[in-house]
Amino acid sequence: MMVLIVYAHPNPRSFNAAILETCREEFARKGYETALRDLYALGFDPVLKASDLAGIQAGEIPADIRVEQEYVAAADLVTFIHPIWWTGMPAIFKGYIDRVLCYGFAYRFDAQGVIPLLRGKKALIFNTQGTPGEVYERAGMFEALKKTSDVGIYRFCGFEIVDHVFFPAVPTVDDETRRGYLGKVREIIASL
Amino acid sequence: MMVLIVYAHPNPRSFNAAILETCREEFARKGYETALRDLYALGFDPVLKASDLAGIQAGEIPADIRVEQEYVAAADLVTFIHPIWWTGMPAIFKGYIDRVLCYGFAYRFDAQGVIPLLRGKKALIFNTQGTPGEVYERAGMFEALKKTSDVGIYRFCGFEIVDHVFFPAVPTVDDETRRGYLGKVREIIASL
Repeated sequence: MMVLIVYAHPNPRSFNAAILETCREEFARKGYETALRDLYALGFDPVLKASDLAGIQAGEIPADIRVEQEYVAAADLVTFIHPIWWTGMPAIFKGYIDRVLCYGFAYRFDAQGVIPLLRGKKALIFNTQGTPGEVYERAGMFEALKKTSDVGIYRFCGFEIVDHVFFPAVPTVDDETRRGYLGKVREIIASL
Repeated sequence: MMVLIVYAHPNPRSFNAAILETCREEFARKGYETALRDLYALGFDPVLKASDLAGIQAGEIPADIRVEQEYVAAADLVTFIHPIWWTGMPAIFKGYIDRVLCYGFAYRFDAQGVIPLLRGKKALIFNTQGTPGEVYERAGMFEALKKTSDVGIYRFCGFEIVDHVFFPAVPTVDDETRRGYLGKVREIIASL
């Protein structure tokens, strides 16, 4: 089992970093091999450019995109870890999606419609948020977030979603709650 | 009436560019003054960094963010023009949101909760998409997109949303449909 972790947070002491560490421990415990792509540490360029599109159309994938695609291609399970900012992905993570999951790699079209090209891979998503869970629940925001990520991105490419967990109110909950959040991460990975 | 246009598309010959041109013509016809922030042309840096957060907390807004905030502060109406990529904003546009609409400028908290700081401003949003409208409609994607932008971002900061229009299937519709799309842009601005 080959696991790819795609991770984005600007602060190495954030709770997202604690989730990342917990994931790596649990995957190691199961004997899974993991590769980490830490988008901030890599200085990943998130801006999809006209030159990228021209290259993709010509079948010449830009070098930095090709590297990321090789990691995705090699993985059986991809774990995505990032905070929710402004009811969406941080720009650096959204740009990973915009650039790496390009036409011809993640999907293509034929006469019948969309052909997902990442079938057979699993996705596991951990998101943190500042907003309390009740506020998002009441506004239907969890559902909207799952539609715009799980449905619109991951399933569109063929990923099977193992789980998508939101950890709410991270800056304001107590340590016990945060420990409980990490316990949930352990539990999910243990049960894979 | 001072109008700010925030625009993001990598291709200067795209349909988004045609929407931008149409907006500028119609705003000029009404005698509104317009300022344009073309994020690709500006080479806008969309990555919110740990140093940005430290600066914002210390009350020292990074120079490039401050410039954008001055444009927003001066505007009565902000027109946002960008394509929908992967059921969300292009990374360069999402990064404009992540960085420019920071705490203390776009919102703040007090004991009662969120205080929106951009009240009195209007927002008008034009989005293009490759996917046919029926597909998004059936999947509830338009609703999800409005939740994750209008509710989660613009209204959260206090913007009054004048209109949010999606132009579907742009690469595959015929020229007459595209002319109709631009006619709708003219009509909305004329009726402001």
